[in-house]
Amino acid sequence: MTSTVVTNIGELVTVDGTRGDELGIVHDAALIATDGRIDWIGSASAAPAADRSVDVEGRCVLPGFVDSHSHLVFAGDRSAEFEARMTGTPYDGGGIALTMAATRAATDDELRALVGRRVAEMRAQGTTTVEIKSGYGLTAHDEARALRIAGEFTTETTYLGAHVVPPDARDDRAAYLDLVTGDMLAACAPHARWIDVFCEPHSPHAFTEEESRRVLRAGQDAGLFARVHGNQLGPGPGVLLAVEVGAASVDHCTYLTGEDVEALAGSDTVATLLPGVEFSTRSPYPDGGALLDAGVRVALATDCNPGTCYSSSMPFVIALAVREMGMTPAQAVRAATAGSAAALRRDDIGVLRVGARADLTALDAPSYRHLPYRPGVPLAHVILDGR
Amino acid sequence: MTSTVVTNIGELVTVDGTRGDELGIVHDAALIATDGRIDWIGSASAAPAADRSVDVEGRCVLPGFVDSHSHLVFAGDRSAEFEARMTGTPYDGGGIALTMAATRAATDDELRALVGRRVAEMRAQGTTTVEIKSGYGLTAHDEARALRIAGEFTTETTYLGAHVVPPDARDDRAAYLDLVTGDMLAACAPHARWIDVFCEPHSPHAFTEEESRRVLRAGQDAGLFARVHGNQLGPGPGVLLAVEVGAASVDHCTYLTGEDVEALAGSDTVATLLPGVEFSTRSPYPDGGALLDAGVRVALATDCNPGTCYSSSMPFVIALAVREMGMTPAQAVRAATAGSAAALRRDDIGVLRVGARADLTALDAPSYRHLPYRPGVPLAHVILDGR
Ligand SMILES: [Zn+2]
Ligand SMILES: [Zn+2]
Repeated sequence: MTSTVVTNIGELVTVDGTRGDELGIVHDAALIATDGRIDWIGSASAAPAADRSVDVEGRCVLPGFVDSHSHLVFAGDRSAEFEARMTGTPYDGGGIALTMAATRAATDDELRALVGRRVAEMRAQGTTTVEIKSGYGLTAHDEARALRIAGEFTTETTYLGAHVVPPDARDDRAAYLDLVTGDMLAACAPHARWIDVFCEPHSPHAFTEEESRRVLRAGQDAGLFARVHGNQLGPGPGVLLAVEVGAASVDHCTYLTGEDVEALAGSDTVATLLPGVEFSTRSPYPDGGALLDAGVRVALATDCNPGTCYSSSMPFVIALAVREMGMTPAQAVRAATAGSAAALRRDDIGVLRVGARADLTALDAPSYRHLPYRPGVPLAHVILDGR
Repeated sequence: MTSTVVTNIGELVTVDGTRGDELGIVHDAALIATDGRIDWIGSASAAPAADRSVDVEGRCVLPGFVDSHSHLVFAGDRSAEFEARMTGTPYDGGGIALTMAATRAATDDELRALVGRRVAEMRAQGTTTVEIKSGYGLTAHDEARALRIAGEFTTETTYLGAHVVPPDARDDRAAYLDLVTGDMLAACAPHARWIDVFCEPHSPHAFTEEESRRVLRAGQDAGLFARVHGNQLGPGPGVLLAVEVGAASVDHCTYLTGEDVEALAGSDTVATLLPGVEFSTRSPYPDGGALLDAGVRVALATDCNPGTCYSSSMPFVIALAVREMGMTPAQAVRAATAGSAAALRRDDIGVLRVGARADLTALDAPSYRHLPYRPGVPLAHVILDGR
C-alpha cells in the first residue's frame, strides 16, 4: 500500500456529475491515490499526508483521456496515399490491402513493438485507456494474433474480423461471413471483450445491415459486447442497428437522420464522434453540439489508423470538436473522458471520484479551456496511472 | 571546433533548390556540422568521421522550422474569451486591453520567464528560429522593454507599437501616431530589426493605409526593415502597401484581390499565411495553393498570440495548410522552412546546405509527409541548433 498525494492542483476537472457543474471542477485541490485508486479529493489546504507527494504547481489536472476507438495493430506505411488524397492525385496504393499484407507479414515481435510505440505515444499525450481493434489480419490466425498482442496493452480489445471483406475473399462473400461468425470468431473470442462491424452500404467491401446484424449477434452469442462502425460515408442502417442490438457505442455518426438522433437519445448507445477522420479525409463534420442538445450521449475518440486518420492525439480531437462540431470546450472534455468511458461501459475511468481508477493527466496550463485554445501544442501528460 | 555527424537519416529534407526536386530530398543521408554550421552533406555510407555522432535511426530530418510571426511577450490569460467566441456567448473580457494591462503590470523577470517558456515550447515542437513582436506595451517604455526581453531569445525582433491604438490613447489618435513614429520608435529602434503595423481599415483601432505608410516609412528611416499585418479581416490596402515599401512580408492575407496577387507575384514580398488564426477565430482560410500557382512566395507561421491564435505549433500549421489551404505536404513544409526564412530575408536558415546554420529537426517518422498525415501528434524535435 503506497499512497500518493497530488497537491497544488489549480483546477481539478473531476467530470463527476454529482458535483453540480458540467465538469465538476474543484479549485486549489489535492487528490490522494492508494494502489491505483482514488481515496480522497478535497481542498489542497486540507489534504492529509501520504507516502509520496507530487506538486503540479497550479496546473489543471483531469482524468486521463479515454480513447475508445483505435486500430493500432498494423504494419506498413500509407503516407503516400494520404498525400495523394489531399492533393487530388489519382493513386492506388492498395489501401487497406496494403496494410493487411504488411500486418500479416510482420512477426509477433514487430507488431508488438509497433503497438507499444503507438500506445506510448498516446500516453505521452494524456491518454490512459485505449480500446484497440483487430481488423487488418482477416484470417482466423491473424485476427487472433492481433487481439492477443492488443491484450498485452489494454483490456478493451475488439474483434473486427468484419472490417472489410478482404481482397482474397471477395469472390465468395458468404464464405467470408461464415468464417467471421464461425472459426474466426471462435479463435478471437477468448482474446476480445468487444465485437465490432463496419456497417456501411456505401462501401462495396463493408457490410450490409443484414450481414452486420448476423456478425453482431454471433459475437454476442459468444459472450462479446457489441459496438458498431456506422453512418460514416452516408446515411445508413448502422445507428438503428446499434440501438437494436444494445451496442455500447456507434462510431463515426458523420451522417445522421432525425430518426437516428431520436433512437440514440432514447437509448444507452453512445454516439462516438471521430473528427480526426473528417479532418484527414476532408469530409463534413457531424454536429456534436446538436446531438448533445437532443439528449444523445456523445464520446470523442481518435480512430487512430493508417488509412483515414493517423492521429493518436485526444487534445487534437478536442480542438476539432470545438472548432468544427459545435461543442463547447467543457462538452468536448467531458466527451473525451466520461463520454468515451461510457462508450466502453466503464464507470471507473474518465472520472475522478473516490473509488475510481487513479488515472491522472496534467496540462501545462491553468485550465481545461487551454486544450482547444492551444491547438497542436503538447500540453497534456499522464502523471499517475491507476493500472 | 567540435564537429558532429548526424547519421542514419532515412530522409533528409534539405529544401535546397539546387538539388532538383521541390524539397531537395536525400535518402540514407548523413550531415556534418562544425561550430553551428553545416560543412558536409552526403550519403550515410560515405560520411567522414567527426568528434561526436548522433544516430537518428532512419528518421526524417529537416531544417528547424522558422516561425516568422509571433507575439510572445505578453502576460495574462484570455482562454475565457476564446471559449466565449467558440460558443457564441456574448463576452467582453477586454481583449487586447486585458493583455496590455497584464503585460505592463508584469515585472521584467516575469515577462522573461513567460517568453522563455513559450520559446522552449516552440523548440520542443521543432522550431529553431522565431520572430517576436512587441505590441502589448504600447508606451515607449513598455515597447522598448518588450523588445529588450525578446532580444534575449532571438535576433528577429519586431517593433509593433502600431498594433492598435491603445484604449488610453483613443481620444487623440494623432498624438498616438506621433508617439509611435517619434519617441517610441527612438526608444525601440536600438532593440529591433523590423518595423510592423496592423494595417486594417476594418478595425477601428488598427491603422489606415495612410497611417500605416507613415509608420513603416518612419521605421525604415530609423534603419528598420518593414513587414506588415494586412488583409486579415477583409480586402484592404495592406498587400499593395507592403509591396510599395518593399516589405519582406505581408502577413495574414486572408482576403486578397486579383490585383493583390498580381502585385505579390511581381515582387520580393512574401505572403505569410497564418492558418492557426483562421482555425481559432473560425474564419475562412486563404488558398495557399492558388497563391503558389500564381507565382507568389508563400510562408507559414503561427502568429502565436493570446487573442486570435495561441498555438505555438508549426506542425499544426502545416497540417492546416494541407487540409484547408490547398497546399501539398511538400509545399507546406517548404513554406514553413525556406519560405518563412525568406519572409525574414534570411538564407542561412530554413535550408540544409553547406554553410547554412546547423538547425536540425528530426521527426519520429520516416517522412515529412507524416507531419500532415499525423495531425496533433508531437513528432518534431530539435536535435541540433546552430546558434
Ligand atoms: Zn474505426
Ligand atoms: Zn500577428
